[in-house]
Amino acid sequence: MTDRAPLRERAARLFQDIQSLICSALEEADGSAKFRNDRWNRTDPNGAEGGGGLTRILADGAVFEKAGVNFSSVHGTMPGAFAAKLNAGAEDMPFFATGVSLVIHPRSPLVPTTHANYRYLELGTKSWFGGGADLTPYYLFEEDARHFHRVLKNACELHSPEFYPRFKKWCDEYFFLPHRGETRGIGGIFFDYLGRDDGQEHESLFLLAKDLGLAFTDQYLPIVERRKALPFSEQQRLFQLQRRGRYVEFNLLYDRGTHFGLQTGGRIESILMSLPSLVRWDYCPSYPEGSEEATLIETLRSPREWV
Amino acid sequence: MTDRAPLRERAARLFQDIQSLICSALEEADGSAKFRNDRWNRTDPNGAEGGGGLTRILADGAVFEKAGVNFSSVHGTMPGAFAAKLNAGAEDMPFFATGVSLVIHPRSPLVPTTHANYRYLELGTKSWFGGGADLTPYYLFEEDARHFHRVLKNACELHSPEFYPRFKKWCDEYFFLPHRGETRGIGGIFFDYLGRDDGQEHESLFLLAKDLGLAFTDQYLPIVERRKALPFSEQQRLFQLQRRGRYVEFNLLYDRGTHFGLQTGGRIESILMSLPSLVRWDYCPSYPEGSEEATLIETLRSPREWV
Repeated sequence: MTDRAPLRERAARLFQDIQSLICSALEEADGSAKFRNDRWNRTDPNGAEGGGGLTRILADGAVFEKAGVNFSSVHGTMPGAFAAKLNAGAEDMPFFATGVSLVIHPRSPLVPTTHANYRYLELGTKSWFGGGADLTPYYLFEEDARHFHRVLKNACELHSPEFYPRFKKWCDEYFFLPHRGETRGIGGIFFDYLGRDDGQEHESLFLLAKDLGLAFTDQYLPIVERRKALPFSEQQRLFQLQRRGRYVEFNLLYDRGTHFGLQTGGRIESILMSLPSLVRWDYCPSYPEGSEEATLIETLRSPREWV
Repeated sequence: MTDRAPLRERAARLFQDIQSLICSALEEADGSAKFRNDRWNRTDPNGAEGGGGLTRILADGAVFEKAGVNFSSVHGTMPGAFAAKLNAGAEDMPFFATGVSLVIHPRSPLVPTTHANYRYLELGTKSWFGGGADLTPYYLFEEDARHFHRVLKNACELHSPEFYPRFKKWCDEYFFLPHRGETRGIGGIFFDYLGRDDGQEHESLFLLAKDLGLAFTDQYLPIVERRKALPFSEQQRLFQLQRRGRYVEFNLLYDRGTHFGLQTGGRIESILMSLPSLVRWDYCPSYPEGSEEATLIETLRSPREWV
């Protein structure tokens, strides 16, 4: 029997379920810390804006130094100036947005940071899906990079053979720091504005978002298991903190989602939960040629095909 | 006898001298670490762009965790798109820019962070002075805030009674984080685009920049001396690292100078030397009502008159 609820309701339910599954799996992988849960409501003195979300944060775990998994479902009127930025027209118009978004900063520099986000947006008469997932290692284990991309490719191929190559390229282009000439990490997938204006593709895109969201634990946790118990040096920890600085640079200088959230009055602490706990900026850090650190940076300067 | 050298040459020499004086004074105040000096040239395959600078960084000092003092003097052709942002026209046009810029991040949370910048820019047929100085305490000693503003006010009043009130307000408006509803610190002065198009005021503005640049050590170092030996707690250090996160947020999300530098191909490490070494972002940190931490944040939410 088909679920006849409107797509927006099913999408919100899906993203909530994905949040719940991922948080349980992360708690199990951490083995020590639990998520703190903050429910929040979107407040509006006029009552026209509504919705809210559930922000879940795990801090100071055995494996994860900071992990944030956010669900939100909000609606109201979008000012024309913002609608115009999304190519949806220049007048104020009703919107509905729901999504799940996560960033995980592990303690060990040998365990990569990761981000994933799947979302559904209705704006005026238009609606679309967006999302993606990417991996930011500090020390490059090629096996891990291949695994991460392989799981994403498999999930994409359940829907179209064209998705993975297209989304992989989109990801390399999106998560790029022009001032550094580096990608944020070794990529993954990214897509936005997916869905024809007549809405005909939306049911299949819903299933794509579902398969990708459910793939998260498979794409990431085996990497965590392989690396989490490896010993690491103070030097490696320092490099991790310096590279986290690049993560902050990307999110604050370039990330459209961050800017959009801050400019539209989103919940600040839920938006900036993406930032790592501890970060360093040192002037002109340098790494010996051929070192693991230099190798990683070289990899970020010329995106590779991993599968 | 009047120095008849062109204003651009005298300005560059002045800013270099100010850099030198400030670095000597900072080394003396630190008592341990010395500045590392990096001379850099602006490279251009066509030879049309030129100039360079001297970036001076003191790291891991006894008093200063990271202090950067940068001098630059560059010239070339500014693309019309950037000239337009400066209201100087929409065509490519020659530019010359020189300035001294510094950010000091002390180790102790009881010693405030400070920033100062004085600059002279020629763009097409226009030219102007800009600059300012502001103080970012982590724990508020009102005596320090009054001292800092008093020295700036005195220097401004050598030139016009209108400058300090005008520049003080400009500073509170400029160093503001809308998403946090907070100023970056307790302010100081800020000004830009100073100088009539006919250039008649430029000689007196040169003297203003000189007096303000030379006032830097007086406005900041007495505060350092008063606070540098005070003991502080781990809790205070944590608060400092969290507040440094706000400094990073301002510089990466809003600072026009940072964006301009990154977009025009400035020297990345010299631009981002403004970022603190160690920084933290914690989710929803909270401070008891009436605590020193809460008092500081309250002060940042409603700028005060300090002199």
